[in-house]
Amino acid sequence: MDSKTEPKSFVIKGDICYSTSPQEVSCTQNGYLVCVDGKSAGVFGELPQSYAELPLVDCTGQLVVPGMSDIHVHAPQYAFRGLGMDLELLDWLNTHTFPEEAKYADLAYAGDAYEIFADDLRHSATTRAVVFGTLHVPATELLMDDLEATGLVTYVGKVNMDRNSPDNLVEDSAESAEATRGWVADVTGRYERTHPIITPRFTPSVTDGLMAELADIAHQNDLPVQSHLSENLSEIGWVKELCPWSTCYGDAYDHFGLLGEKTIMAHCVYSTDEEVDLLRRTGTYVAHCPQSNAQLASGIAPIRRYLDLGMNVGLATDVAGGADLSMWRCMADAVAVSKLRWRLVDQSLSPLITQEAFWMATMGGGSFFGKVGSFAEGYELDALVLDDSAIRTPRDLTVWERLERYVYLAEEGGYLTRKFVAGRQIDLD
Amino acid sequence: MDSKTEPKSFVIKGDICYSTSPQEVSCTQNGYLVCVDGKSAGVFGELPQSYAELPLVDCTGQLVVPGMSDIHVHAPQYAFRGLGMDLELLDWLNTHTFPEEAKYADLAYAGDAYEIFADDLRHSATTRAVVFGTLHVPATELLMDDLEATGLVTYVGKVNMDRNSPDNLVEDSAESAEATRGWVADVTGRYERTHPIITPRFTPSVTDGLMAELADIAHQNDLPVQSHLSENLSEIGWVKELCPWSTCYGDAYDHFGLLGEKTIMAHCVYSTDEEVDLLRRTGTYVAHCPQSNAQLASGIAPIRRYLDLGMNVGLATDVAGGADLSMWRCMADAVAVSKLRWRLVDQSLSPLITQEAFWMATMGGGSFFGKVGSFAEGYELDALVLDDSAIRTPRDLTVWERLERYVYLAEEGGYLTRKFVAGRQIDLD
Repeated sequence: MDSKTEPKSFVIKGDICYSTSPQEVSCTQNGYLVCVDGKSAGVFGELPQSYAELPLVDCTGQLVVPGMSDIHVHAPQYAFRGLGMDLELLDWLNTHTFPEEAKYADLAYAGDAYEIFADDLRHSATTRAVVFGTLHVPATELLMDDLEATGLVTYVGKVNMDRNSPDNLVEDSAESAEATRGWVADVTGRYERTHPIITPRFTPSVTDGLMAELADIAHQNDLPVQSHLSENLSEIGWVKELCPWSTCYGDAYDHFGLLGEKTIMAHCVYSTDEEVDLLRRTGTYVAHCPQSNAQLASGIAPIRRYLDLGMNVGLATDVAGGADLSMWRCMADAVAVSKLRWRLVDQSLSPLITQEAFWMATMGGGSFFGKVGSFAEGYELDALVLDDSAIRTPRDLTVWERLERYVYLAEEGGYLTRKFVAGRQIDLD
Repeated sequence: MDSKTEPKSFVIKGDICYSTSPQEVSCTQNGYLVCVDGKSAGVFGELPQSYAELPLVDCTGQLVVPGMSDIHVHAPQYAFRGLGMDLELLDWLNTHTFPEEAKYADLAYAGDAYEIFADDLRHSATTRAVVFGTLHVPATELLMDDLEATGLVTYVGKVNMDRNSPDNLVEDSAESAEATRGWVADVTGRYERTHPIITPRFTPSVTDGLMAELADIAHQNDLPVQSHLSENLSEIGWVKELCPWSTCYGDAYDHFGLLGEKTIMAHCVYSTDEEVDLLRRTGTYVAHCPQSNAQLASGIAPIRRYLDLGMNVGLATDVAGGADLSMWRCMADAVAVSKLRWRLVDQSLSPLITQEAFWMATMGGGSFFGKVGSFAEGYELDALVLDDSAIRTPRDLTVWERLERYVYLAEEGGYLTRKFVAGRQIDLD
């Protein structure tokens, strides 16, 4: 199917799994997932007569699960993924990240780099992503072009940074706001699947004046917002110095009206009680980035607490703090670090279970995009078809056990055979 | 080359890396690794005239690194890797592990399971392994047959357990010792590359009487020893109850003469000062199992301390506490958890760097097998040839950067093209 064509109506037959709550996964062996005009009409053990005429995509024996939403990933950092993981956040930014991001002033370099990023994302388990670009408008629009062509649904941010940044990666405050208004005007309505998101890098990089301007742009254009929050202890101390008027780091965003149900804050490792309450009350999304928080020696976010409070929580790779785009690895890491946190930090917060990681990767982050991340009736049909036959065992496994081990073993021998976004099949060649 | 034939003499051309100290990796672009009669004659920037007549294995553009030693892995647990990671050690053993291991009384099941394990290990980055079987002698000998056929070099243990174990997975003390003597007699000299190792499961499963017998068998037959030590807090408390005479858990082995340079103790997460000193003085190997220690909520071992003390430390997957056989993933995990330990537990122990993880995976564990894990002159030639061309980046990378990212990205697009053990090429088809 061409990703440009209208979503089709069809039926996928296979071993179908999706979350019905954070702790529960519905599994149907040899089931039928019905897609009507790009939306799920539900999962059935027997195909209802009313759908018998739809084309059948026969994936018998393969797992069929909702697509994953990676709600925090830095496209320009993909070029140095797996490198330079020897520093904490602020030194890592200055040593590895800012010099790389400065290269995206060069459109030829950006073109080479973003083509790789978009192509690898297309082949990954991710169907929806929320993406940081750089401060450069032309490179960010090129990134949006590349992502649109993948068929995935994404939000992409031109980054804003007007202080505490190197000379070759910093903006004049007024020009930064102006460039952002121009970029928003440029890209609004240009794409079918690729949307702008307002992206102040983080409080240390953005003056109060620019932060207020960005909030204004977001509100005027009804745009979502993404940034970073309470990732690292030095960062938090610095924000306190930079915004002495703030009651907590989260307040340094909330003060400008930047939190809410259309905002994603990455990390939230060290959020105070006040900040947690602020995130909860505003409905702000927490992007949990377990691998990044380990590799940058940041810590482990108390995700159990956020789930217990019913907060909006999704998973994210945070490339290049995380080394790769695998949402499977991200799920496995989320479970693993939650156990270390329980053991080493706070035994009042029980470890996450694999079902909860799966829920966060699908429904938790998916809800940022609307009715996404489930096969319940009415959800946009994002689906992955997974061949797990190369992951060998002498045991007979239930469908759930096959999915459970896939989370941990996807990279061993798992194979993504088909991928659908809102009912459109993605080209995996 | 047939793995049964004598090791060949040949030259590998490629981008060659090996550790020269825990913190330093020698990298030679377009270098020549010379193998003479199965041993390294060194790495050269220009091929010396004296080796010009040797056959050339041209791996230009590919990485060439020493093989990895996985010094703690449970073959029978491979069947349920990636499943049931929801419990701590002692409950996990009773719920998931012991029921699986009991199945190996059935040789047909063991045959199916071990064929998969051996085949996957053959295709992995591991060239040498130290392996737990089960208490069943016939299944363990079958495992040894399968491993011998891979061409890898391994130590394999028939497990001993005569207390605190389920009825279908426990031995009479005298029969356990007798069976072990019989097994040792059976397999000694039978294989070229596969050797017995005495394997009391851990103190909670082995009475003092049997422990003494096993030490006797090890000493009489000059055999190495493997077991578990100080993995989990409940386990440590239990050992204190079971061996009230012991001054620490390590003493419960040392008392019988079971520690030493031919002994591997897995985990050592919570070793006391006394125990650390015991391990150091005896030269006992610590098998660091970072993924397992996270997934079983055990904790994080203080590996920086062990390295600073000059102790023998290697890396291990500990399947099925760890989910897979990837020593690349094991290295990445070792670095990641060391950062979390630094952040959350003890800032006096600096995080590990990638070079140190590489050293542990190659030389650290390799030295248990003799002169193994390096390309320095005189070392047995275990080598991996790695095609990293599918891991795309717009950057120009140094040879070291390519290896560094391979540690983190092997599963993304790395490809093992050739594998040599003691100069013999392994069949990767």
